Amino acid sequence: MGKQKVTFDDIAKYTNFSKTTISRYFNNPDSLTIKNQEIIAQALIDLDYKENKVAKILANGKTEFVGIIIPNLYLHYYSAILNQLLASYETFGYKFLVFAGNNNEAVERRYIQELLAYNIEGMIVLSHTIPSKELASYGIPVVTIERESNYTCSVDTDNYMGGVQATSLLYKTGCEILFHLNVDVPVFVPSYGRIRGFLDICREQQIPHELLLRELGDTYEENRQAIQKTVDEIERKHPGKRKGIFLANDTYANILLNYLFQLHGGLPDDYRIIGFDNSPISSEAVIPTSTVGQQIDKIAFTAMELLVEQMNERKKRRPTPFAGPIHKVITPVLLERETTRREK
Amino acid sequence: MGKQKVTFDDIAKYTNFSKTTISRYFNNPDSLTIKNQEIIAQALIDLDYKENKVAKILANGKTEFVGIIIPNLYLHYYSAILNQLLASYETFGYKFLVFAGNNNEAVERRYIQELLAYNIEGMIVLSHTIPSKELASYGIPVVTIERESNYTCSVDTDNYMGGVQATSLLYKTGCEILFHLNVDVPVFVPSYGRIRGFLDICREQQIPHELLLRELGDTYEENRQAIQKTVDEIERKHPGKRKGIFLANDTYANILLNYLFQLHGGLPDDYRIIGFDNSPISSEAVIPTSTVGQQIDKIAFTAMELLVEQMNERKKRRPTPFAGPIHKVITPVLLERETTRREK
Repeated sequence: MGKQKVTFDDIAKYTNFSKTTISRYFNNPDSLTIKNQEIIAQALIDLDYKENKVAKILANGKTEFVGIIIPNLYLHYYSAILNQLLASYETFGYKFLVFAGNNNEAVERRYIQELLAYNIEGMIVLSHTIPSKELASYGIPVVTIERESNYTCSVDTDNYMGGVQATSLLYKTGCEILFHLNVDVPVFVPSYGRIRGFLDICREQQIPHELLLRELGDTYEENRQAIQKTVDEIERKHPGKRKGIFLANDTYANILLNYLFQLHGGLPDDYRIIGFDNSPISSEAVIPTSTVGQQIDKIAFTAMELLVEQMNERKKRRPTPFAGPIHKVITPVLLERETTRREK
Repeated sequence: MGKQKVTFDDIAKYTNFSKTTISRYFNNPDSLTIKNQEIIAQALIDLDYKENKVAKILANGKTEFVGIIIPNLYLHYYSAILNQLLASYETFGYKFLVFAGNNNEAVERRYIQELLAYNIEGMIVLSHTIPSKELASYGIPVVTIERESNYTCSVDTDNYMGGVQATSLLYKTGCEILFHLNVDVPVFVPSYGRIRGFLDICREQQIPHELLLRELGDTYEENRQAIQKTVDEIERKHPGKRKGIFLANDTYANILLNYLFQLHGGLPDDYRIIGFDNSPISSEAVIPTSTVGQQIDKIAFTAMELLVEQMNERKKRRPTPFAGPIHKVITPVLLERETTRREK
């Protein structure tokens, strides 16, 4: 504020080093001895030096900015992923420009154009609105998480394995009929694997089953009404039978559990329930709920690794980009809690 | 990618406007007629013009970046606020660099130094680690939310009013003794107002009460153990009495409710419960829980307004900064649900 700006010249004079040495301190510190690094670091404090990164960006094109495009932060899954991505600052040093699209494709596209104008180095996309073909055309590294990714590198949970784990557990606890409640997931979305996993185990074990794919609404209240209707239907059609229900996420599982508690004052003996995600609600429910845990920390870290690898490649004098998109899957972890741990 | 860069000269030639007109389109579009704006906009598409904002930043110092420093995204309150702040992009056009400090003061300080080096225009701080005196010394506009704010502009919920609303409701439903369960909040933190509100109403109505300020732990499991212990104590000390319990947040209220359901198969007649925040868990609990709702959308929007006002002021030729920090409070909204709506 009004103070004279400290230059490399000033730092050189103060430390008795050459300007070249000072410049090396900023651009390649490891080329100096630890002792000399410390002398210069101390000088910066003494002189109250303020780095101007904007000038540096113009010089080498490295902004150290990464864009993150998420659909929203209402769903716990997205805020959990975002939390882990932000935490990678300590490891990789990238700063994150975050945008929540809320399904407004036009605003999302405008935002991305702005980010590109600011020379961001890469982008992590969780939102579903823009096709991966378009994302790949921006000419910067992109990694997508749990969405269509034909043209981009991606990191997804092994959803098929999760479906297999959940269904096998219900089968093992002695259920006579199995249900999977989900929305009508498009086949190209990774989470469709949960449906395939459910069907494969049911067929393999030749156990009676029903796949319940329904419009469940976009708000909690709509979810609640749709799920209560489904439960009423199941109770009417299958009285007395031991029922195993695998729900597409922990929010749905919690709604089911609460409704059964309201109807019966507890979880009736003929129900086994499992959700998906290991959201906080699965532990905070009226009784702890079994779930298939996504390894959020591992998903976020793998996505950043994959992005950093591509961004570093582009900084080389002769970059060799990946031959094609790389797709990584992270194994989920089965968590057995009280809603499946009941005497047969 | 390898293409020749499109310049203002190219756009001027293509549209038959002067270079000055093109420059005005980018820096002050409203000085042109709508028709001329459209002609130039179309030319940018035809020519595949890519704006370079980095050069623009160097020219006028406006980065359009705002830093957001939050403690974490595990607590729903922070992700809800962040969601609303990000949504303000459509209104104000600012892009957000987001950082979750997780109580690591050194990393947080380093991150902020980096943001300052990138010439961010302002900062919104929810994290508690750095004193407001230090935040104010950075020389850029800062607005804090729900934390110590002696030297910074701030937006907080009217916590005192919230405490009054919650306690009055419990009193009106015919409770014979009232409790407030909280951690030992420092007096200078805004949420201390909840404790003052509780005590003032209890004294005014001359109703027996206990202020339970305790170490409740940092994880859900620790919260659960501490709250169950407190409930056991209350049940032992006050059997049969109609008890009204005001908890510091909805997570605590949910733990209390679940424990009573596990002990008694439902909420016993001699309990009235109210939480704070209107987090999703208050609606998604085994029965919908009464709460004091924070107007998250209003808090976030007011914070951005207050920040934008200061940032705009700094862009004037002769800025007149605020004489001192401005503090705004947002009134909370009482939500009566099933845990207080019981026959006397």
